[in-house]
Amino acid sequence: MFSQQVYISRRTELKKNLKKGTVLLPGNGESGMNFKDNWYPFRQDSTLLYYTGINIPDVYFVLDIENDQEILFGNDPTPEEIVWIGPTTPLREFAEASGIKNIKPLSELADYFAKGAPTNKIHYLPPYRSETSVKLHKLLGMPIAEVNSKCSVSLIKAVVKQREVKQLEEVEQLRNAVNITAQMHTYAIQNGRAGKTEKQIAGDLQAIAIGGGGNISFPIILTANGQYLHNHASEKKLIDGELVLCDCGAETAMGYAGDMTRTFPVSERFTELQKQVYNIVLDAHNTAIEALKPGIKFLDVHLLASSRLVEGLKGLGLIKGDTQEAVSKGAHTLFFQCGLGHMMGLDVHDMENLGEPYVGYTDTLKKSDVFGLRSLRLGKELQEGFVITVEPGLYFNPYLIDAWKAEQKLSEFINYSEVEKFKNFGGVRIEEDFLITSTASKLLGDPLAKTVSDVEELINTSK
Amino acid sequence: MFSQQVYISRRTELKKNLKKGTVLLPGNGESGMNFKDNWYPFRQDSTLLYYTGINIPDVYFVLDIENDQEILFGNDPTPEEIVWIGPTTPLREFAEASGIKNIKPLSELADYFAKGAPTNKIHYLPPYRSETSVKLHKLLGMPIAEVNSKCSVSLIKAVVKQREVKQLEEVEQLRNAVNITAQMHTYAIQNGRAGKTEKQIAGDLQAIAIGGGGNISFPIILTANGQYLHNHASEKKLIDGELVLCDCGAETAMGYAGDMTRTFPVSERFTELQKQVYNIVLDAHNTAIEALKPGIKFLDVHLLASSRLVEGLKGLGLIKGDTQEAVSKGAHTLFFQCGLGHMMGLDVHDMENLGEPYVGYTDTLKKSDVFGLRSLRLGKELQEGFVITVEPGLYFNPYLIDAWKAEQKLSEFINYSEVEKFKNFGGVRIEEDFLITSTASKLLGDPLAKTVSDVEELINTSK
Repeated sequence: MFSQQVYISRRTELKKNLKKGTVLLPGNGESGMNFKDNWYPFRQDSTLLYYTGINIPDVYFVLDIENDQEILFGNDPTPEEIVWIGPTTPLREFAEASGIKNIKPLSELADYFAKGAPTNKIHYLPPYRSETSVKLHKLLGMPIAEVNSKCSVSLIKAVVKQREVKQLEEVEQLRNAVNITAQMHTYAIQNGRAGKTEKQIAGDLQAIAIGGGGNISFPIILTANGQYLHNHASEKKLIDGELVLCDCGAETAMGYAGDMTRTFPVSERFTELQKQVYNIVLDAHNTAIEALKPGIKFLDVHLLASSRLVEGLKGLGLIKGDTQEAVSKGAHTLFFQCGLGHMMGLDVHDMENLGEPYVGYTDTLKKSDVFGLRSLRLGKELQEGFVITVEPGLYFNPYLIDAWKAEQKLSEFINYSEVEKFKNFGGVRIEEDFLITSTASKLLGDPLAKTVSDVEELINTSK
Repeated sequence: MFSQQVYISRRTELKKNLKKGTVLLPGNGESGMNFKDNWYPFRQDSTLLYYTGINIPDVYFVLDIENDQEILFGNDPTPEEIVWIGPTTPLREFAEASGIKNIKPLSELADYFAKGAPTNKIHYLPPYRSETSVKLHKLLGMPIAEVNSKCSVSLIKAVVKQREVKQLEEVEQLRNAVNITAQMHTYAIQNGRAGKTEKQIAGDLQAIAIGGGGNISFPIILTANGQYLHNHASEKKLIDGELVLCDCGAETAMGYAGDMTRTFPVSERFTELQKQVYNIVLDAHNTAIEALKPGIKFLDVHLLASSRLVEGLKGLGLIKGDTQEAVSKGAHTLFFQCGLGHMMGLDVHDMENLGEPYVGYTDTLKKSDVFGLRSLRLGKELQEGFVITVEPGLYFNPYLIDAWKAEQKLSEFINYSEVEKFKNFGGVRIEEDFLITSTASKLLGDPLAKTVSDVEELINTSK
């Protein structure tokens, strides 16, 4: 946990922003896999973590703003339970470390709400686990189908306003997460050789994340089929000549995430063509990084990177015509179907559960619904203290190529006969994490091999 | 998947046993960690896997017995989704491999139940995920609080009757799972040396399970504090002189579990005292194995093993008096607080979600509620084809010792002054998995070092 003062001042700020009502933050419980007590690794709710730092299952935090009262609801293990689990930190110590004065047992929670103790508005965030929906349904006595729609937009906005600007302590945690993440990538680049299955390497990467004290921050993507964006690791064996796209991250024991991508050859060297495509992505990546600064819309950085991709694709003979026009018509989205990046923090897609309209956009800048831009999670102006990913890519997706070609979509910009030759190429992505500073940006974590020659050298130092 | 005939005949048997009604098996969905789309590894419901073999999220299987109709409800990915995830096996192929003739989209599921298509009784199993409770609540139109109590006992009994007797194909899967599990233990024994954290080793073990094609079958217990039964791996560094208790298992890609325990010294050799305690547990373990055969109550095997533990503890001077009397009074439960073993199959505690009264006991043999026996998951007569674990242990739990000593509990059997000296000893468990044969039992998987000398030799071959 951070110091008590960190949590107290976060809650003070929340009260100041929200002004009235009672905030109810239900913590996560254990989550059963194939029976109730066979648990997935416990993951606390990130907003509860942010305001209290308490990283144990089955607690609820209640903040009654008008009456300036804070209560932590939870149970200590019984003496019999301690026989089975051994010594644990008592709730009282967690509450103290977090600066919360009142602790009540879970048995009093229902009464607290049933008896109308909070006569003011009850603010809660939209639940993302059914278990939490059921908890809120029981506690607040509303039909389960209404739980989601009755969440508090003012609480969402207040939470986003705080969590989007990272504090120094948080940046330090994020840097740790990114450094463990870089270790995972170093291992993948050095060990992703022919004959191993994707899952074997992914398992080893997860071991590095767990050994770092936390776990993976999202399911590992490690695939020779990087053209499919949501592909994970399979039983497929790697083959010489393939490109491996590895997108993975660790989260620290406190829950802060890292998220990086490298693309590397199974053979010791990139082919000439792989090198050309890789360098187009790298150019877009570097161009985007140079543009990062407070006040710039991330949407504009996305479009800038897209224009660099188009320039590169023109060099390869896949795109023709005016670059800006090609970008504005979306010609690049045949190869770059997604967004340039997203917020990162206590969640790898930070605050995704609170909703993109609040996290990535504003009341005046709404997300576009056209193909490509509708997958851009972050569009709004950057601020000092934001932590974001920058992850351009080129994905030669045969399904999409066939579909566009069939209707000759944007054929004024796209050389389909040339594109056809890339249907087995795969995908390339390069991703790093950045802190927005007062004037520009700063790479989080120690640098990791990124150029063609550095990646090849890393492969060869492993021999 | 197994052959089509396996699934067809399992369902034929179910229909024969259950005779009437409509069986509804809801498959599991993806389970979000800290936001909806950041998923834990997908784990299918084991009963759905058993009857259909279909290992993908968000399918429902309906079996209308009177009308002899089988329907698989599910959706194929849309063309747009395929752009993101790449090629997938269509539902039709899954249904065919499983011998199910009818496929309907999920959009028709609500209507199927709302329009009263099944006018007969609807059988479903008790849900263990809130998400499934919510699904059943919506589908069957009953209050969420009633979903659990209205599950079908006749379906539970019919499922247990089939799943508890393992078929040849299943034994082969279980053997694979146990062999991967043994690789995990070999690694732990060879690498569990001073200076590493428990979590570092646990991470490496998970990598072996993932590399085996599936994942871990339950959260890894790897701890220098084996006296606490439900302890997991922590950030604690191992220290020379400690004993490590490692209880872990892999599950295969098809979902079959392994579950073994070894206890080994962080130093290269056991101390004399560690050796003595270890050999008491080993004796109980071997005695129990020799007793395994169809027709014997596992409760009696548990008591037999307990009496061997008491004999050994008498040799150590911790217990005194008549062995059988000590066991019947529960004196051994100060050191062996749990059960000797459990069923194993598609779940590591097989069918735990269906309830111990049905899985481990019978209408005439009910589970005891006294300390010790109430933690014995399996008491009933063994049958040919059962797969079970045998896992005696000795756990020197300082909380329990203090509590018993304070009230001088069973002091006619327990030498508290001697026991006091063991409060820092830790815990020892030895666990293997067995198939009950027509006359006795057979160890599942290749043998792994189990005696003191074999474990020490394994440590030393790793240098």
